[in-house]
Amino acid sequence: MALGTDYERQDCALARALEVVGERWSLLIVRDAFYGVQRFNDFLVHLGIPRAVLTARLNALVAAGVLRKEPYQQAPLRHGYLLTEAGLELWGPLYQLSRWGGRHATDGGPYHLFAHTACGTDLDFVGVCPKCGGAPVPPTGVVMRPNPARAGVRREDPVSRALVRPRPLLEPIASAAPAA
Amino acid sequence: MALGTDYERQDCALARALEVVGERWSLLIVRDAFYGVQRFNDFLVHLGIPRAVLTARLNALVAAGVLRKEPYQQAPLRHGYLLTEAGLELWGPLYQLSRWGGRHATDGGPYHLFAHTACGTDLDFVGVCPKCGGAPVPPTGVVMRPNPARAGVRREDPVSRALVRPRPLLEPIASAAPAA
Repeated sequence: MALGTDYERQDCALARALEVVGERWSLLIVRDAFYGVQRFNDFLVHLGIPRAVLTARLNALVAAGVLRKEPYQQAPLRHGYLLTEAGLELWGPLYQLSRWGGRHATDGGPYHLFAHTACGTDLDFVGVCPKCGGAPVPPTGVVMRPNPARAGVRREDPVSRALVRPRPLLEPIASAAPAA
Repeated sequence: MALGTDYERQDCALARALEVVGERWSLLIVRDAFYGVQRFNDFLVHLGIPRAVLTARLNALVAAGVLRKEPYQQAPLRHGYLLTEAGLELWGPLYQLSRWGGRHATDGGPYHLFAHTACGTDLDFVGVCPKCGGAPVPPTGVVMRPNPARAGVRREDPVSRALVRPRPLLEPIASAAPAA
């Protein structure tokens, strides 16, 4: 995933981070993992990504320590992809970048809204609960719901249908999509 | 900068944000703009990026409303590239992604450290001043300095040399590099 020797010269933690998650599909895969997507075919249908690209990106995210493989079925053996501790720490930058996109790069605002599970208050733009204060809410304390203002543009794949209801982040989605 | 029709189907503010800044060089250009780089040749020498790629990325960032062009010389006319209000709002996700890279994607920690100008306290991992509290410090209130632990790996281009001393973010760097 490197950009070559010129890019390698960038002595910056940001450049290193971008080597891991800077490929755009990679951050969308990580986003889907926060939404609860774990299975290959669920990433496939929700992202509309070519199968070979998805395989390569998942393997790279596992190699970089962002995702880990965990069996969800023994016969035949099937693995899901779950966020590691390092992967879970991507919630902050991912949430903030998403909010930036909602403000500056879309017409009509965000497609999903994120609230503090404990009190139901929508998070602020850095992911802090305005009612409870303190540090940004970790993803385990966040519930997502579709933005009613964007209800007209829903997609019909199994993952999109699961995301129509309010859901805690990281709650596994096991769709009816056939196993890969 | 789009990833094609499959990518376009991603009805997500994050996907839209990644269309604007998801190309890895784009975020490094934005990072350099926070560091005070404004001139074409300074981006060129500091990023080690091919000239044609830099031209394309700068134009795309201007078109997306992240950077704006401003004259710094009249005869002959030369423009610098400055962050817009929307661009300035990328500080949060960029800082957090950089901190994530410093924790998980580099050996030896970050190359630069960031402190609250008003009190000199290093920012926490979401960009809040631990001493003053409250919201994340905006980039206009942040001073950067090289991490002494990484002093052995400095580069010798004019921008890297300017960044050897503590500097407020956004303070213009006007190096001795010849105008493009």
